[in-house]
Amino acid sequence: MATRVDLNISLDGIASPADPTPDMPMGADWGLLTAAYVSTRTFRERVLGDTSGGGTTGLDDAYAAAYFEGVGAEIMGAGMFGLHSFPDDPDWKGWWGDEPPFRAPVFVLSHTPRPTLAFANGTSFEFVAVTPAEALERAQVAAGGQDVRIGGGTGVVRDFLRAGLVDQVHVSIAPVVLGRGGRLWDDLRLLESEYTVTSETAESGTIHVTFKR
Amino acid sequence: MATRVDLNISLDGIASPADPTPDMPMGADWGLLTAAYVSTRTFRERVLGDTSGGGTTGLDDAYAAAYFEGVGAEIMGAGMFGLHSFPDDPDWKGWWGDEPPFRAPVFVLSHTPRPTLAFANGTSFEFVAVTPAEALERAQVAAGGQDVRIGGGTGVVRDFLRAGLVDQVHVSIAPVVLGRGGRLWDDLRLLESEYTVTSETAESGTIHVTFKR
Repeated sequence: MATRVDLNISLDGIASPADPTPDMPMGADWGLLTAAYVSTRTFRERVLGDTSGGGTTGLDDAYAAAYFEGVGAEIMGAGMFGLHSFPDDPDWKGWWGDEPPFRAPVFVLSHTPRPTLAFANGTSFEFVAVTPAEALERAQVAAGGQDVRIGGGTGVVRDFLRAGLVDQVHVSIAPVVLGRGGRLWDDLRLLESEYTVTSETAESGTIHVTFKR
Repeated sequence: MATRVDLNISLDGIASPADPTPDMPMGADWGLLTAAYVSTRTFRERVLGDTSGGGTTGLDDAYAAAYFEGVGAEIMGAGMFGLHSFPDDPDWKGWWGDEPPFRAPVFVLSHTPRPTLAFANGTSFEFVAVTPAEALERAQVAAGGQDVRIGGGTGVVRDFLRAGLVDQVHVSIAPVVLGRGGRLWDDLRLLESEYTVTSETAESGTIHVTFKR
C-alpha cells in the first residue's frame, strides 16, 4: 500500500511545460516530454482505446504498464483536473471525456465544493478541501489496500514530497532541454537520502529513475 | 578534432555546487556529484597518482578513461583556475600542484594578464583575454588535430554551448538532488535538437548522457 508518484520530466527537471492554454492544457512542450510514453502499446490501449496492438513494447512500455497497475485511488490538484482553466463551468468533468483512464476514486484538492462525479468505468472525482496528509488518509481508505498515486500537477507532487508522504517516485526523463516551465526538483535538496535510487535507460533514450523507500 | 564538454551534474542539473570556499573550492557538495567518478581506477591513477590498481573498473571508469583520451588542449575560466579565490596572489599556480592532470596546453580566460605557467608533465596555463570563439581557434591550433575540451566552470561551458561551439557534451548525472548552486541547462532550451543524444546507466546509479553532433 505505497504512495506513488510518476512524472514525465525533461533533463532540466521541467515537469510542467510553460504556457498551458485551454487548447493545450499541458503546454505546447508536453509532446516533447511524453513522446516515448504516448508511443507505447499500453498508452495507446489504455488512454486512447486503440486495441489494434500497435505501439512500442520495450522498457518504456513496461513502465507504462506498471503505471496503471495496483493503483486503488489517486489524488490530484485542481489545476490538473482543469478547474483553473475552466473555473466558471459548473459542468466541467475533467479533460478525459466519458472514460477517464483512472478507473478508481480520484480525490481532487480544491477549495471550491463541487458534487462528486462518477463514471461507468469506475472513475469518480471527489472534491476535497483538506491538507495533503488528510487527503492521503482518505485515499488510502478508498484504495482498499492498493497503492495511492499522487497524480499532479507538479506543485501538488512537490507538496507531498516535501511533507515526506511519498514512498516511491518514478520519473521518466526525456532527453530534451525545455528551459522553461515548472521544475520538479526545487526545494527538494537531498531527496534521495530518504530513498534507494535506481535508474535504467530505454531504447527511446528515456531515462527511468526510481526512488523507493 | 572535436570540441568537447564533460561535466558532473546532479539530477536537478546543478554543475557548480553552492558556496565554494578557498578550502573547498568546488563547494561542499562536490563530493556528492563526483562520488562515482573519484572511485574509478582512472581517477585514482590519473589524478591522485595512485598506481596500486584500486578503484572501480565498470562503465564509470570507461567514461573516466575517455575523459583523458584524445584531448590536445583545454579551455577554462578564471574561476576554475582559481583566480577568483586568490585574486591577489601573483604566484597562484592553480589547484593541482606540480603535476596538473591536463598534460596539454590550457587556455585560461582572464582579463588580467599573467605570465604563462609551464609544468614538466606537459601542462601549461596561458592567460588570454579573448572571446570564446577566439580562444577556441587558439586552442585548436595548440591541440594539433586532437580534441579541445571546454573544462569549466559552468558559466564558461554555457557560453560555449550558447555560441554553438561545442561538438560533444557528456554529462555524468549523479542520482542526487542538490537544490542549490549553478545550473547547467538554463537558457539552453532545445539544445538536444542540434545533437544526437544517447544515455546509459552505470552500476553506481550514475546516468551518462552524451550529446554528439
